[in-house]
Amino acid sequence: MATVGEPLVREVSEDALLARIVPLLPPGRATLLPSGDDAAVVAAADGRFVVTTDVLVEGRHFRRAWSTGRDVGRRAAVQNLADVAAMGAVPTALVVALGLPGDLPVAWLEDLARGLADECGPLGVGVVGGDLSGGSEVTVAVTALGDLEGRAPVTRSGARPGDVVAHAGVRGRSAAGFALLAADLETLDDELVAAYRHPTSPVAAGPVAARAGATAMIDVSDGLLRDAGRLAAASHVLIDLDADAFAADRGRLAAVAEVLGEDPTAWVLGGGEDHGLLATFPASALVPGPFVVVGRVLAAPADGAPEVLVGGARPSVPAGWDHFAG
Amino acid sequence: MATVGEPLVREVSEDALLARIVPLLPPGRATLLPSGDDAAVVAAADGRFVVTTDVLVEGRHFRRAWSTGRDVGRRAAVQNLADVAAMGAVPTALVVALGLPGDLPVAWLEDLARGLADECGPLGVGVVGGDLSGGSEVTVAVTALGDLEGRAPVTRSGARPGDVVAHAGVRGRSAAGFALLAADLETLDDELVAAYRHPTSPVAAGPVAARAGATAMIDVSDGLLRDAGRLAAASHVLIDLDADAFAADRGRLAAVAEVLGEDPTAWVLGGGEDHGLLATFPASALVPGPFVVVGRVLAAPADGAPEVLVGGARPSVPAGWDHFAG
Repeated sequence: MATVGEPLVREVSEDALLARIVPLLPPGRATLLPSGDDAAVVAAADGRFVVTTDVLVEGRHFRRAWSTGRDVGRRAAVQNLADVAAMGAVPTALVVALGLPGDLPVAWLEDLARGLADECGPLGVGVVGGDLSGGSEVTVAVTALGDLEGRAPVTRSGARPGDVVAHAGVRGRSAAGFALLAADLETLDDELVAAYRHPTSPVAAGPVAARAGATAMIDVSDGLLRDAGRLAAASHVLIDLDADAFAADRGRLAAVAEVLGEDPTAWVLGGGEDHGLLATFPASALVPGPFVVVGRVLAAPADGAPEVLVGGARPSVPAGWDHFAG
Repeated sequence: MATVGEPLVREVSEDALLARIVPLLPPGRATLLPSGDDAAVVAAADGRFVVTTDVLVEGRHFRRAWSTGRDVGRRAAVQNLADVAAMGAVPTALVVALGLPGDLPVAWLEDLARGLADECGPLGVGVVGGDLSGGSEVTVAVTALGDLEGRAPVTRSGARPGDVVAHAGVRGRSAAGFALLAADLETLDDELVAAYRHPTSPVAAGPVAARAGATAMIDVSDGLLRDAGRLAAASHVLIDLDADAFAADRGRLAAVAEVLGEDPTAWVLGGGEDHGLLATFPASALVPGPFVVVGRVLAAPADGAPEVLVGGARPSVPAGWDHFAG
């Protein structure tokens, strides 16, 4: 909450805002020329880089009443770092474009920068550029860059029948945490609420999977079924998830689900924004930790579209969320 | 304007929107893996890349009543390509994060994609990734990547006393076009209105300047005096612009300025968003076209801050705009 006398974004010039934020941001291992010019320069040792962009919009992806600036900064970083990791790459740098309401406290913006630093700093990722604009809601558009270290990118399209399906990270916790906040029951399970406010992604596991021979990979941002479906569609295969692979997840969420009258399986299979990594490996590969086998790749039926099954059957829970539907 | 029955963004799924946009976007010369996975892969032949981000927000940077989707797409591309050029780099790729109101016509979004393609296609720049979100106003956050081709980046800080100051591009036209639209007199000078709606930047001149030995460079996005001031501050020098270097600019804008009761010199020296390039060159260098010499670099006074003079005197026009002030 803004306190009396706390400066607001509209009371401070753009240059003065930058002067407050830039010192909070990590310089980065691969940064050759930091922010301060029209563009930064970042190393790309193997002559290529991966690039991805993801945006968070206030009122759509977060509420300021539910998330601090630091939460939003962490989340904006994590969802982009996870996309880089899902290619099997090591993230090297971020840039951040912000739309900011004039009545946003400057302290909120500084907190956002600290949240970006929380996630990027330990990984050696630099926040090397940004842009600030006014806007009627907070918009945080992050672009992340990464280094494949000479390896081929791990795409969504390389899964083959016979591969195993493995997952690294948590499942359903962000959705459960969101449900707790929506029900005004956030004190019921701090860990789940934190998993919504600032999800953690096993970013380092992306390159680990690539080195272990992963044939396909995707960041689970829109729900396990939906993102598994994208991988299945790109690879023209069928994915059969083990029904009992998620028993521990359901158990973890059972108490909260009971209080809220919800189905924990819907959170586990359909909940978005956990930012785990779903990968496929040849059956002969040693699946590396923190990946856990959760299913198998089968041939797509000759007459049907690729799809995702759970225990051999079509799942009866919603497949995940769409950013514009509903 | 939306017509009856024209689909709106909220009526179409995110995947369906992407299916409409992606085919409109240029693939790019340096693209190794296009959009469709969690990240794209772009070549960085010399083992480095430049990266910059800039955002356009509806109601702040453009109005839908004044600019088509195509105008906004062109402008979003140009302002980022100009930042890459200002480092002396050749742009290779863009990614685009969009916030979109639900009642935006899908056709407007397709037009935006065409505008990005208008500017990127001819330069071989790929639009290799993006993200779509809801939002209460249109937000277009573009990140541009570029290739230094083995050269050192041209920063803002390399200008030295004795260098000449040169400019490529137009001056004051975007501001004049904006003033015409604001006065509801857009038919008075189509060329100026077009210069506001979709400014053109001499993007290819950036690497040309670098090869010719430019010591410093900046994209003129916030007005000539303000951006020259940034270059002067970074280089710890004084910049003295020739008073008569801008006579032709004033002449070009004189008729419109007279009708509007404005000072054409204020547009030329203070108007933003023309996206010309301001560079400094050693006095011995052959200044390459399209650059034109417009001033000189002098030593900063021992007791004073770096500053920008015009004809040896402090200019009496406003220095340019600030994104949050006023």
